[in-house]
Amino acid sequence: MSVIDILSLLGLLATAAFAASGILAAMGTRIDLFGAVVVAVVTAIGGGTLRDLILDVPVFWLHDPAFMACATITGVLAFLGRAHLDAHGNLLAYLDAMGVALFASGAFIKSTALGLPPAHALVMGVITGIGGGLLRDTLTGRETLLVSPELYATPIIVGLLLQALSTSVFALPQDLGYAVGAVSIVIMRSLAIHYRWRMPAALINRPR
Amino acid sequence: MSVIDILSLLGLLATAAFAASGILAAMGTRIDLFGAVVVAVVTAIGGGTLRDLILDVPVFWLHDPAFMACATITGVLAFLGRAHLDAHGNLLAYLDAMGVALFASGAFIKSTALGLPPAHALVMGVITGIGGGLLRDTLTGRETLLVSPELYATPIIVGLLLQALSTSVFALPQDLGYAVGAVSIVIMRSLAIHYRWRMPAALINRPR
Amino acid sequence: MSVIDILSLLGLLATAAFAASGILAAMGTRIDLFGAVVVAVVTAIGGGTLRDLILDVPVFWLHDPAFMACATITGVLAFLGRAHLDAHGNLLAYLDAMGVALFASGAFIKSTALGLPPAHALVMGVITGIGGGLLRDTLTGRETLLVSPELYATPIIVGLLLQALSTSVFALPQDLGYAVGAVSIVIMRSLAIHYRWRMPAALINRPR
Repeated sequence: MSVIDILSLLGLLATAAFAASGILAAMGTRIDLFGAVVVAVVTAIGGGTLRDLILDVPVFWLHDPAFMACATITGVLAFLGRAHLDAHGNLLAYLDAMGVALFASGAFIKSTALGLPPAHALVMGVITGIGGGLLRDTLTGRETLLVSPELYATPIIVGLLLQALSTSVFALPQDLGYAVGAVSIVIMRSLAIHYRWRMPAALINRPR
Repeated sequence: MSVIDILSLLGLLATAAFAASGILAAMGTRIDLFGAVVVAVVTAIGGGTLRDLILDVPVFWLHDPAFMACATITGVLAFLGRAHLDAHGNLLAYLDAMGVALFASGAFIKSTALGLPPAHALVMGVITGIGGGLLRDTLTGRETLLVSPELYATPIIVGLLLQALSTSVFALPQDLGYAVGAVSIVIMRSLAIHYRWRMPAALINRPR
Repeated sequence: MSVIDILSLLGLLATAAFAASGILAAMGTRIDLFGAVVVAVVTAIGGGTLRDLILDVPVFWLHDPAFMACATITGVLAFLGRAHLDAHGNLLAYLDAMGVALFASGAFIKSTALGLPPAHALVMGVITGIGGGLLRDTLTGRETLLVSPELYATPIIVGLLLQALSTSVFALPQDLGYAVGAVSIVIMRSLAIHYRWRMPAALINRPR
């Protein structure tokens, strides 16, 4: 199985994770099956669509039916099985973490392959990683995870920095850098969710 | 009058319907004339702009002043006559239905003409149809129609499926397929609004 | 110093103003440093990104690291110094005014240089000017400034009309037209904030 194949498979995994997170986010509303599936699809393809528009390359799902099919099927199944899903209070956050990690690190590779310097590839990674979730939270009227008390932006930025260091300074191949970035984002974000890791109080805003 | 002319006219009708829906959506806020016109214009051109960005074709209103003029004038008139408009509780939903139907079916034709397969043309139709309304509801702080209890996504998806079937399986010309799609979406959605058609309870989420 | 240089500097000033407004907007939430910086960056580059996508030109910050650096540094400094910032109740509105004015007038120039007629350049100016702020307000769950009781859209539209008149009718060079547009928007909007200038009551919606 070539590197490209593995990356595509991980992209589908991220798509499914984001689609399921879209269904969970809609559980606070009186949405119906097809409405929920639309939320799931927009969540799953939103970040990557924004990435491709900014990079001025063909939008990824337009010429590969697998992503749309994956998001739709996951959305339908997650909606039908929603009674079993929402038991875990943090499931939405964990699914989001997986989608964010894989999409962010994948966008870093794609941007680098197009000749962007590491700093801009990092920004593209952040935008791609969080874009779908921001659309999801806006559509379903939720406060975005970006303002969650647990570390959210930090793991993404740190993980992409590690990915940038791996490939620029340590000259690892791009696919190993992808693994470094994605795995470190998932682990840091999961620890943040589970142990409620936060920044020091001085670096968290206290609303007045 | 050629087919192109009729399509353009229907596009202007959809633009006016969406612009008026933008004014109605803003009626819950202390917005002023020009603020409301901006909401009307963004609502009217939002979905088609997103469509053209994704399809990587020139944005439709950038080279045809008719759409912007239509949205602006409709917005101004609807705002000035707002006292007479908001009497009908469902007027916003009906205007949205007309805009959604015409834009969704039009996007299906445009995507098909660019060589997209029916499944992707259908997705482009959904995105184009609902895009402007989602921007409208976000700008005006309303819960989006996508989570309305009445059927919303379903009529769009079913109507576009009928349009896809008409042109692919029954080999109708594209403009007849457009008529099939747009008319069926308007009718189904209007019936859903008027008779409060919903999915079976098992397919509607009950928030906890 | 050439005209281009001055325009770039003013673009950076607008970027910083918008980034700081993003931090202020997030002060109502329990956001942390990096989350707030993401909001600041999205606010600062959002409008211009939308402009470049619609105009189908390379996204401005992708090939010029200065904008991203400026938004990030401003965001970090504004967050760390937030205790000193939020004393002024209207600081957010004034920062927004500066960003809106410079971005709107700059987008008018850029659109004109690409051959757009004045009416469309004006629309591009409005979209670019308000785009970042709309993203900011959506991300931070605030009611958008577009529905603020004080004049908001009006100064932008009037200022851009003056800019269009300056260059089309009075044949001023584009950079002088830019000055006319940006300065008039900042002044009108600042007066509106300070003196609570509004439209006549008949042109403000009264929610029911």
